[in-house]
Amino acid sequence: MDNVTLKKLAKELNLSPSTVSRSLRDSHEISQETKDRVKALAAKLGFQPNPYASSLRKNKSKTIAVIIPEIQNNFFSQVMNGVEEVARQKGYHVLIYLTHEDYRRETDILQLLRNGRVDGVMISVSNTTTSFEHLDAYQNADIPLVFFDRVYENMEAPRVTTDDAEAGFKATEHLLKTGCRKVVFLSMAGNLSISCGRKSGYIKALTKYGLADNARVIECGPDDEINRQKIRELLQGEQKPDGIVAAVEKFAVNTYEVCRDLDMDVPQQLKVISFSNLPAAALFDPPLSTIVQPAYDIGLESANVLFKIIDKKKLLSSEKKIVIPSHLVARESTGCKQNK
Amino acid sequence: MDNVTLKKLAKELNLSPSTVSRSLRDSHEISQETKDRVKALAAKLGFQPNPYASSLRKNKSKTIAVIIPEIQNNFFSQVMNGVEEVARQKGYHVLIYLTHEDYRRETDILQLLRNGRVDGVMISVSNTTTSFEHLDAYQNADIPLVFFDRVYENMEAPRVTTDDAEAGFKATEHLLKTGCRKVVFLSMAGNLSISCGRKSGYIKALTKYGLADNARVIECGPDDEINRQKIRELLQGEQKPDGIVAAVEKFAVNTYEVCRDLDMDVPQQLKVISFSNLPAAALFDPPLSTIVQPAYDIGLESANVLFKIIDKKKLLSSEKKIVIPSHLVARESTGCKQNK
Repeated sequence: MDNVTLKKLAKELNLSPSTVSRSLRDSHEISQETKDRVKALAAKLGFQPNPYASSLRKNKSKTIAVIIPEIQNNFFSQVMNGVEEVARQKGYHVLIYLTHEDYRRETDILQLLRNGRVDGVMISVSNTTTSFEHLDAYQNADIPLVFFDRVYENMEAPRVTTDDAEAGFKATEHLLKTGCRKVVFLSMAGNLSISCGRKSGYIKALTKYGLADNARVIECGPDDEINRQKIRELLQGEQKPDGIVAAVEKFAVNTYEVCRDLDMDVPQQLKVISFSNLPAAALFDPPLSTIVQPAYDIGLESANVLFKIIDKKKLLSSEKKIVIPSHLVARESTGCKQNK
Repeated sequence: MDNVTLKKLAKELNLSPSTVSRSLRDSHEISQETKDRVKALAAKLGFQPNPYASSLRKNKSKTIAVIIPEIQNNFFSQVMNGVEEVARQKGYHVLIYLTHEDYRRETDILQLLRNGRVDGVMISVSNTTTSFEHLDAYQNADIPLVFFDRVYENMEAPRVTTDDAEAGFKATEHLLKTGCRKVVFLSMAGNLSISCGRKSGYIKALTKYGLADNARVIECGPDDEINRQKIRELLQGEQKPDGIVAAVEKFAVNTYEVCRDLDMDVPQQLKVISFSNLPAAALFDPPLSTIVQPAYDIGLESANVLFKIIDKKKLLSSEKKIVIPSHLVARESTGCKQNK
């Protein structure tokens, strides 16, 4: 805590703390002369009102919380950039909580935040979250909550996502158009909204090309070594794929690693496309084709929606479910030469 | 704010709010039977004490702030992971502030935090920070402050850094040992502690090899296009370098982009090494040799030091300046074949 308190100011000025407090809040009950004296000394001594006293009085914490699975991920760090930009303009503070994809941590964090520490919550749910009671509790609480990217479908809260099914379709069709016929989908485990969406797009594209029977989904996870093992078995197995759609960048990286180990040529022997927001994907060997998500915009829009609720403004129905499209960047990993 | 307040609990139980409050804090003045009744109802209704009332009472916010230049950077996101791990174990909340390398934002944030919103501050200063009055103000305030990575040398605050000079030396000597004689250093603009350290290590290595006269430093910045222009001029100029030490990963990425444009072979025509914490550096074309900083450990250690100060424990003199070494990972961009 800073040294200069309201009491000290009052003593120095020979006024009551209440007069000092009202002067600083520009109350009309106080004379201009007194207000000027108080403000001058407050400025000189660098007095800052205690935010907790102010929070209690105004019932506002001027703080929002953002709950994300991990921070070491270009998608989520770009989202944070968007959120922070909006929060700063609104004069709000941003608390960050990482679940590390752990459902228990997520539950603890949400429980902790129910006590009025924040004016609103933004969350992208963990991929181990299968029960949603900790979120249901928010439905009855007064704390605004907005989902982004990974949502809990059954809860009536606003959400900002990308068009995962459409993007999964685009990625898969891109491989089919470049000649692939045996395309495998590397999926995240669990029942995340985004996994289901991306997978359904994959199936839809195969179906459109009459290849629904060839659908093969392999679940990967957080452990690189286990992923590489699964991918190695896939690439050395009887039913070798000629294309891979990776639901997250990590699995594409694992695929590249295994291909390097096996001296397998990408894209000659295997084409690879991945959901990824890594700017350096263009520098990979070979440059990685990607589905790029509008991460910054997702952060920006979900923060905008959250502040509308906090400010008690009515949401348009179009603002309750915002979908921002992802786009395809074709590079050499799917046989597309890049322009220099 | 949640609906269940202390007052409502009290009314429901037919007790005074003060009795309820003391029961929840396990006061010995209250009978066990009453405490049990209060706690049972509080648990049933999901009552959470107001953190701001509690902060006012205890003079603790249970919150720390981390101020970083950017979040879309593997180094800082790994640091955040380390900080968050310690904070979680201590039951603390973490506020995150991004300066976007803007001195004015940094000043605003620090001013904002002087009012007791947080119990401590961790900061890595922006590269546009040249005046330090906003930090000096903390020297007289009661808020603990710890520097990490980028420090303000003249302030008597604890700091956790890596051995930038030693790492700059290691990177440069690595190039010299692989045969380079015309090594250029791509530096961040400004007078950041880390830039100066890395640059001094570069000079020291050249001097050791009798090449001090060949030293050439080019200042790069946040704008990719300007960086590429500078690098293009360098690589097409009279005095072509045979090696590049990039002070940050972004400049190595810019170098790769220009080499691709100019059909210049890395490492045949130009060897490249960079400070970088990007796990995917191994997948670059060619795989990028890197100096890897102990980002997670820097986050962990600086949070540990901060909490020691918050908890009013005495710091050992070895804890006031902690230096954690970086390490070299040699790959094909400096002509080193990787083991599979």
